[in-house]
Amino acid sequence: METVEIGDQLRIEVCYSPALFPVYYQSKNCVVVVIDVFRATSAICTAFQHGVKEIIPVATIEEAKEYQEKGYLVAAERNGEVVEGFDMGNSPFSYMGEEIKGKKIVLTTTNGTNAIERAKAADQLIIGSFLNLKAVCSFLEAAQKNVILLCAGWRDRYNLEDSLFAGAVIHSLSNNPRYTGLADSSIAAMHLYGLAKYDLSAFLASSSHRNRLKRLNLERDINYCLQENTIDLVPIFEGNALFVNRA
Amino acid sequence: METVEIGDQLRIEVCYSPALFPVYYQSKNCVVVVIDVFRATSAICTAFQHGVKEIIPVATIEEAKEYQEKGYLVAAERNGEVVEGFDMGNSPFSYMGEEIKGKKIVLTTTNGTNAIERAKAADQLIIGSFLNLKAVCSFLEAAQKNVILLCAGWRDRYNLEDSLFAGAVIHSLSNNPRYTGLADSSIAAMHLYGLAKYDLSAFLASSSHRNRLKRLNLERDINYCLQENTIDLVPIFEGNALFVNRA
Repeated sequence: METVEIGDQLRIEVCYSPALFPVYYQSKNCVVVVIDVFRATSAICTAFQHGVKEIIPVATIEEAKEYQEKGYLVAAERNGEVVEGFDMGNSPFSYMGEEIKGKKIVLTTTNGTNAIERAKAADQLIIGSFLNLKAVCSFLEAAQKNVILLCAGWRDRYNLEDSLFAGAVIHSLSNNPRYTGLADSSIAAMHLYGLAKYDLSAFLASSSHRNRLKRLNLERDINYCLQENTIDLVPIFEGNALFVNRA
Repeated sequence: METVEIGDQLRIEVCYSPALFPVYYQSKNCVVVVIDVFRATSAICTAFQHGVKEIIPVATIEEAKEYQEKGYLVAAERNGEVVEGFDMGNSPFSYMGEEIKGKKIVLTTTNGTNAIERAKAADQLIIGSFLNLKAVCSFLEAAQKNVILLCAGWRDRYNLEDSLFAGAVIHSLSNNPRYTGLADSSIAAMHLYGLAKYDLSAFLASSSHRNRLKRLNLERDINYCLQENTIDLVPIFEGNALFVNRA
C-alpha cells in the first residue's frame, strides 16, 4: 500500500464529476471530501448540527422505499424537489426541527448520494459544504493524507458552486507548505474561488443550478448554503452511514 | 433528431475530460472542438499550415505500427516523448519541413488522438489550438450549432492549458447574443481565461504539463503553442482522417 511519509508533499486534486472518480482515485490512502453545496451536503451538515444521530445515504429511490417500509424516516430528492411519498427532500430547513433529534435518517438525492456511493471505498470519506468549511480544512490538515475534493456536480456534469467550495478548501490549505504541489484542477478551483469569494451569490448569479433552485422558489436555501463556517463539525462515512466527529 | 432553429439559443459546454464525453454528448447535432494545446492539436494545425494533405489519427501504438508497415509516415508520442521506432512525435517543429508537403501522416498521441477517437461520432469534429483560435471561432459562428469544447486533458484528468483555450473560445463567442446561456463549465473556463489572457505563459507556470514539458527541454514548444492566431485554418475530421478547410 502507498503510504504518505511525514514531510512528503501531499496531493490535493479536484474531481469535477462523480463519473471521473475512478480516474482520480489511485490509492485507498486518501481522504475524499464529497461536495454538493446545493443542497445535499449542506443539508447533511445542518442535520447533524441539529442532533441527527446517523444518516444512511442510498443511491436509488427503490432502496429508500425499502427503508421506509422498515419504518425509517426517509428523505428523497430528485431534480430539486421532494419525491412524492417521502418525508422530506434536501432543503436544509427540513433538518432543523426537534422531531429529527437522535434519529437515523435515510437520504437519497440527485447528485450528492450518488457521489458518496461512488467514493465509499476510500479510506476516509467526509462531507463538505461552505457551512463547515473551516472544520473540513482542520480535519484535512490533521489527517495528513492526499485529498480528493469530489464535486457532485449535476448529473455528472461540472458545476460552479461545488467547484467554488473545492477552491475555498485549497485556498485555505495552500498556506500549509505540505500542499504546495497543486494539481491543475486545484489551481483552477483556487483561482475561481479567488474571483468569487467576496460575493459568492453574485458570482453564481448565472450558474445553472442556482437558477434551477430560484425557479423552484428556493432562494432562501441558496443564501443559507452560501454561509461560511456556521457549523463546526465534519460528517464521516463509516460502514454504511454518516456519523459526526465534532471538530 | 434534435435540430437547432434560427434564433434559438445555442449551447456551449466545456467537457474537461475525454472520459466525460458521453455525459455531454446528448445529440449528434453539434460541433465538437478537440483541444490538446500541449501539443497534439497545435502540431496538427502546424502540419496543415505547412502543406500536409491528410492526418489519420489512431488511438493505439499497434494501429500506428500497422500503418507504418504499409509505408505511411507515422508520428507517435507517449508521455511527451517520441515513441522509439517512429518518424516523429507531436512537436509542432517536426511538422514544418518540405518532406511532409502533400503527405498523409498517421498520428497517435497520449491524449489528443484519444479525445478524437471518443468524439468522432459527432456530426462535426474540428481541431482547436491557440494558433487557430480565431479561425475556430469563425467556423463555430458560421456552423450555428451547439458546441462541445472537448479538452484532451492528461490521461482523462483536468488540465489547465486546454481549459484556457476553451475559455478563449467562449470569451470570443460570448459577444454573440445567440450564446448567452452559458453552461457552468463555460462560465468557469471564461473566467480562467480572463485571468490568464495577458500572460498565458506566466499563468501556466505551475501547471503540471507545462512543467512536464519543461523537464523534457520543450520550452520552445510551449512558447510556440501559446501564440494566438498565427494559423488561419480549421482541420476537420471526415471519414477516418483530418483534412483542411481553409477559413
